[in-house]
Amino acid sequence: MDMRQPQVIYTQPGDTQPSDTSLGDLPLDARYSAVRAHTLALAAPLSDEDCGAQSMPDASPVKWHMAHTTWFFETFILERMEPDFAPFHPAFRVLFNSYYNGVGDKHPRAQRGLLTRPAMAQVRAYRHDVDARVARLLASALDAQQRAQLELLVTLGLQHEQQHQELILTDVKHLLAQSALLPAYLDAPRPAAPPAAPLAWVDIDGGLADIGHAGDGFCFDNELPRHKQYVAPFQLASRLVTNGEYLAFVAAGGYFNAALWLAEGWDWVRSQGLKSPFYWRCDEQGAWTEFTLHGEQPLDLERPATHLSLFEADAYAHWAGARLPTEAEWEVAAASAQNSELQQMFGHCWQWTSSSYAPYPGFQVAPGALGEYNGKFMLNQYVLRGSSCATPDGHARASYRNFFPAGARWQFTGLRLARQA
Amino acid sequence: MDMRQPQVIYTQPGDTQPSDTSLGDLPLDARYSAVRAHTLALAAPLSDEDCGAQSMPDASPVKWHMAHTTWFFETFILERMEPDFAPFHPAFRVLFNSYYNGVGDKHPRAQRGLLTRPAMAQVRAYRHDVDARVARLLASALDAQQRAQLELLVTLGLQHEQQHQELILTDVKHLLAQSALLPAYLDAPRPAAPPAAPLAWVDIDGGLADIGHAGDGFCFDNELPRHKQYVAPFQLASRLVTNGEYLAFVAAGGYFNAALWLAEGWDWVRSQGLKSPFYWRCDEQGAWTEFTLHGEQPLDLERPATHLSLFEADAYAHWAGARLPTEAEWEVAAASAQNSELQQMFGHCWQWTSSSYAPYPGFQVAPGALGEYNGKFMLNQYVLRGSSCATPDGHARASYRNFFPAGARWQFTGLRLARQA
Amino acid sequence: MDMRQPQVIYTQPGDTQPSDTSLGDLPLDARYSAVRAHTLALAAPLSDEDCGAQSMPDASPVKWHMAHTTWFFETFILERMEPDFAPFHPAFRVLFNSYYNGVGDKHPRAQRGLLTRPAMAQVRAYRHDVDARVARLLASALDAQQRAQLELLVTLGLQHEQQHQELILTDVKHLLAQSALLPAYLDAPRPAAPPAAPLAWVDIDGGLADIGHAGDGFCFDNELPRHKQYVAPFQLASRLVTNGEYLAFVAAGGYFNAALWLAEGWDWVRSQGLKSPFYWRCDEQGAWTEFTLHGEQPLDLERPATHLSLFEADAYAHWAGARLPTEAEWEVAAASAQNSELQQMFGHCWQWTSSSYAPYPGFQVAPGALGEYNGKFMLNQYVLRGSSCATPDGHARASYRNFFPAGARWQFTGLRLARQA
Amino acid sequence: MDMRQPQVIYTQPGDTQPSDTSLGDLPLDARYSAVRAHTLALAAPLSDEDCGAQSMPDASPVKWHMAHTTWFFETFILERMEPDFAPFHPAFRVLFNSYYNGVGDKHPRAQRGLLTRPAMAQVRAYRHDVDARVARLLASALDAQQRAQLELLVTLGLQHEQQHQELILTDVKHLLAQSALLPAYLDAPRPAAPPAAPLAWVDIDGGLADIGHAGDGFCFDNELPRHKQYVAPFQLASRLVTNGEYLAFVAAGGYFNAALWLAEGWDWVRSQGLKSPFYWRCDEQGAWTEFTLHGEQPLDLERPATHLSLFEADAYAHWAGARLPTEAEWEVAAASAQNSELQQMFGHCWQWTSSSYAPYPGFQVAPGALGEYNGKFMLNQYVLRGSSCATPDGHARASYRNFFPAGARWQFTGLRLARQA
Repeated sequence: MDMRQPQVIYTQPGDTQPSDTSLGDLPLDARYSAVRAHTLALAAPLSDEDCGAQSMPDASPVKWHMAHTTWFFETFILERMEPDFAPFHPAFRVLFNSYYNGVGDKHPRAQRGLLTRPAMAQVRAYRHDVDARVARLLASALDAQQRAQLELLVTLGLQHEQQHQELILTDVKHLLAQSALLPAYLDAPRPAAPPAAPLAWVDIDGGLADIGHAGDGFCFDNELPRHKQYVAPFQLASRLVTNGEYLAFVAAGGYFNAALWLAEGWDWVRSQGLKSPFYWRCDEQGAWTEFTLHGEQPLDLERPATHLSLFEADAYAHWAGARLPTEAEWEVAAASAQNSELQQMFGHCWQWTSSSYAPYPGFQVAPGALGEYNGKFMLNQYVLRGSSCATPDGHARASYRNFFPAGARWQFTGLRLARQA
Repeated sequence: MDMRQPQVIYTQPGDTQPSDTSLGDLPLDARYSAVRAHTLALAAPLSDEDCGAQSMPDASPVKWHMAHTTWFFETFILERMEPDFAPFHPAFRVLFNSYYNGVGDKHPRAQRGLLTRPAMAQVRAYRHDVDARVARLLASALDAQQRAQLELLVTLGLQHEQQHQELILTDVKHLLAQSALLPAYLDAPRPAAPPAAPLAWVDIDGGLADIGHAGDGFCFDNELPRHKQYVAPFQLASRLVTNGEYLAFVAAGGYFNAALWLAEGWDWVRSQGLKSPFYWRCDEQGAWTEFTLHGEQPLDLERPATHLSLFEADAYAHWAGARLPTEAEWEVAAASAQNSELQQMFGHCWQWTSSSYAPYPGFQVAPGALGEYNGKFMLNQYVLRGSSCATPDGHARASYRNFFPAGARWQFTGLRLARQA
Repeated sequence: MDMRQPQVIYTQPGDTQPSDTSLGDLPLDARYSAVRAHTLALAAPLSDEDCGAQSMPDASPVKWHMAHTTWFFETFILERMEPDFAPFHPAFRVLFNSYYNGVGDKHPRAQRGLLTRPAMAQVRAYRHDVDARVARLLASALDAQQRAQLELLVTLGLQHEQQHQELILTDVKHLLAQSALLPAYLDAPRPAAPPAAPLAWVDIDGGLADIGHAGDGFCFDNELPRHKQYVAPFQLASRLVTNGEYLAFVAAGGYFNAALWLAEGWDWVRSQGLKSPFYWRCDEQGAWTEFTLHGEQPLDLERPATHLSLFEADAYAHWAGARLPTEAEWEVAAASAQNSELQQMFGHCWQWTSSSYAPYPGFQVAPGALGEYNGKFMLNQYVLRGSSCATPDGHARASYRNFFPAGARWQFTGLRLARQA
Repeated sequence: MDMRQPQVIYTQPGDTQPSDTSLGDLPLDARYSAVRAHTLALAAPLSDEDCGAQSMPDASPVKWHMAHTTWFFETFILERMEPDFAPFHPAFRVLFNSYYNGVGDKHPRAQRGLLTRPAMAQVRAYRHDVDARVARLLASALDAQQRAQLELLVTLGLQHEQQHQELILTDVKHLLAQSALLPAYLDAPRPAAPPAAPLAWVDIDGGLADIGHAGDGFCFDNELPRHKQYVAPFQLASRLVTNGEYLAFVAAGGYFNAALWLAEGWDWVRSQGLKSPFYWRCDEQGAWTEFTLHGEQPLDLERPATHLSLFEADAYAHWAGARLPTEAEWEVAAASAQNSELQQMFGHCWQWTSSSYAPYPGFQVAPGALGEYNGKFMLNQYVLRGSSCATPDGHARASYRNFFPAGARWQFTGLRLARQA
């Protein structure tokens, strides 16, 4: 339903560990500057017109992402901690609230593309103003408790902004696909991908495992508390499903075989007349292309299949005689000794699991409006694990829980197969 | 989404064990006759007009339930095993198929109420004909393998028909509520309910538990395989939430407090302008009534609150400082030594859990069209445990997994609270 | 939007004059009995189940037609004029109000098929009771003014009931078409139709004409006041367009040629994927059938094409190099000396005109709820002239204005071509 | 449905004659330059962001208006007449086609706001390129027939562009109203309006009148052929209904009185919960404002009520004991000797008539795609006469037929009362 995550325009994808260009080592004020600057870098290839449009209710304009991430700092930090706080603009409290009922009214989500005012220049000024005030606050004298609270909230705001960085890329991709000109976001040619390795099945032992975030580093509330789960032994595929493999499913009539689909998936695929993944196109000569951030490209059979809904991922798994992993299985595998045998765990595509998004046992909702961050979305959504090519460096980790409804296709979402041991 | 279950017009509700008037002890042919006769008994208070109408796409006409349960025996037993099989009517294969893609076309679900032809008399004749043929088959000489298969399929067909018996009652209740006359299904006065016992919190130990159906008795595929799950210690309420308790939530403005609701639940409750449970009505003097199978009645504060959606159950639990149990917690509690302290586990209301409906580890789908029975519905639905006042005797058990989408309200669905130990 | 008209199960269609089996000569009490009895005769071939179902929001159950026409007499006559009036049932005032805001609340139109209570038997009792009371009132001593008012209202009620008699037939036809059994309303075989005469163009003089109802006979408010309109000379086709002619349009790709359609018609035809008239079906061998009140029949190429929307009628006329007549042209032609050259003016199909339904200059709305009869529907509807095979004898006349939205297809609606002189 | 007309940012409104700053006297090439430059002037107060957004499917982005009007010249003139024609950009043929099926595919209307590419700069270049080529063509040697055809098409293209000039203003107003900032299109303060004159009833003789465009000047196909209509004597209000008068209707509960509304209007007003005209707002102290091109302003009781749907205009007329004029009445009045007694005929608001938009007797559709200009929209739309404050100078005339569906409110649409003589 609601959404987070963007990115450093093509991370070096890590295989067994998330990539990290060590933003984490920077002091907080430098980290703040780096993350905020990265958002501007993502918008750099775009015109003001590009930044204003909203291609569907699930996506948001880049301008809105830029303003909303700033609103987050203004509302949850400056308003609480700045002496003599005054809002940059009183109307922005409503205009750039995403879903926090505790903060008050919201501009209707589906009409974010109609906000030609405030103009991009004004939103840039808003960012600039808030940045200066946050920097001032970080440099000010605070008692230890205030300091700790400030650092916690700034860290949260940066993680939040990184989530929106991934969304900027997925939303821009969706927008550009609406024009018959099929324009590229990135001028550079798409780098070649290496051939996919042969798929191997990795045995994972299972047992009574500890699930959830451990250690002192930042995590979201939905990764806690760490708790026990029993996981039976199983096998996990060594890599993601490729475009080439998925094309074989398409060619075998997979989109027209009811037996492979969940009931709701079958209604979904038939009512929309779908025949292939999002952004794929088959020309009159039968050649397949995929729309990418580099514009339309020949379908690369070696790359992981992406922009799949859970429905499509699940149907493919059935067809392949396998199934999706649960999120606990995925996390156990990532923490296991067999981890080194698993490729493409991070930095390629988010990987659908069969687990619905639910609170961990003992989950605590934070008090106040910030408590609306995760808990209220824990229904009719499914968990994805890993990270994608659009996830900012340093943002991913093995306990990270991304989530989307089963029909979402505009994110960089793919799949890794599992099966009984 | 899709649906099963009806009932013996008011079971004696069991507290710690499901009620069983021991249909299970009868030989299969007698059990067949008894279950089939019970469906006719449920239709007895209704006119042919009543039996033909469909009050919403989720519900079905009684006539359709009567024909579809018969179609199940004809299609999955007679067509496979009867020598010289000929269908009772060739069009019925399409008209009374519910959702089995493997069987062929289906009449559109939302238009079942337009099937004034075949007439009720013809559907009764259809039942009579199939009953005679099933009886003949049961009495015929078969080899051991055929006999075993036949008994398995007849048992499945009867369990399926019992599911529809509960649906007949919930669907009739919904239909009768559409008329301004608010007619009663049952002429008899509603029996008085005893006062609710004080609510106690029962400590359940948890640990590494075995979940799923055990033993030789019948169960559905979704209750298997029996497998291990770790359940942390927790507390479960000794009884269901009552109408009186739920009314306090209504009076406290629960339907207007966003902080209590899941995001999708809040959209649901606001877009429909809901203020109270389904079938409740507040007259101009502020007196509350509830529509029942006995017609409209004063709201009985001592009875369990029912006809709640998962959204409402979850919001109430938040308001009460508690939560819903998971389905594993419910099943562990039912099997625990503390079972005797738990009241109203069966025979009152189905109890919402926070668990999404998903396959157990190692779940096997049956081959052929019968494999469509459960697996394909395992998405965006939530599990309910126990049984209701409308569940036929002998149909409930502790491993039973009922399931509905979060917004379903026309079933007899209530809640039992849980909380951390 | 709202609706009137049924029929004597196949009138002898008149060509130049409406058929009249001279109900008009009967005294009012006998006319009352005859019209009311005819409604029962129309329902005679139907079961109670058939009478309760509503196949779409635009159609109504037969039971509802039977009750609503009775409600009309009870509300507008008995309630006003009966001493010690008491309603037959207080809830019926709401349940069987069609659209009269002045009378109070209404049961939702789309849910008329859910009124299994009151049962058919109760509706028959309602008719019987009201009939007896109207008869008593007609036989009672009244002063001249009361007598005149009573006779006016009874006449209006009978005309209203005759409108519903036509609707009973069109609505039943639509309902029966929903079942895969395609049952016949009438058991008798469909009578053969004579070959269509060659189409001739009849010159109509035009000039400054008097339009609207003249004389003392009954007419609806929308036929008044009689007024002047200037009509230029034109030509009118001597007969209706036949199924054979319309089939040629279908075969020529008419449903796929945007140039022939009104913009809204093209959206309508494409969004619904239409390829032929309502009730037509082409089997796998290419043979065309049409569903009729006698069940499914081979398409009769000689009969007038019927069940056409205005969109289809207009597109056909474009294709044929002609146009639809205006309603004034139709009425002028019917009153002209050339009338005798015109066939099929009455008793076959209602004939679409290009005239939107609008008040005549000086149109007066009656005071009170009865004033809602016609005026408030005069928007986005188009006028049809003549009468159909389902119009009751004695109900048609040259000044009669039937009207439906441009997309309506379930009425007996066809077309007659016109062109410039 | 589809749409035309914009304007010289506040004409001097004519009373009895349309205003004309005599573009008509200019030679064609100078007229071309003037009209094309005026479109740019209308966009001058707007950012590129403003120009890209589409606030609803009925409205279009300013950028799209700028490109589409250029596409019209390119497609209907350059492509036909330019030697060695090559399109400015091949994709523009699809992207900027509005509704001409004869020209080929179209970009979906509701997604015009997603065309961030081509950018505004590219659309300006497109205009520049086409302007130069049209100028070259106008200056080139052509035979008389070609010259005549060219002049006809250029004139048509300019009239078409003027229609879009009015739409630019109405669409921009609608867009700016979506932002909580309620920004002004025009920085200048709103000029004061003079007090409304007392309303007088002007007697119009009627009789057999000539309706439709006469003379040599340009007109659209829908104004032809000139033909006879009989119009009975009637009275027409001397001026438009004012905001003050309309506010009295609002205050009298007009929006809550079903008896005043057309049936479809009542559904419309209730389903949307409307209480006042579009752009009106009542603050918590009960003070009324209206959103204008000068931003939000106090409601000016002396100005004509505008942004009314036909439903609202008709309901007001009922309430006032009057009715709307027919379009023939309006045109007869404008041509009558009493014309001088009629104020505000042009330059204030388009005036709803009760006439549905229909072809005049003998109406001829032009061959080819240009024939799609008017004829195919002649259904379920109603005619407006006069012109508005947003209509370009020189564009209005007494025979002009503007048209919109009955629920359209975002145009400058008001009403003038009529009544029987």
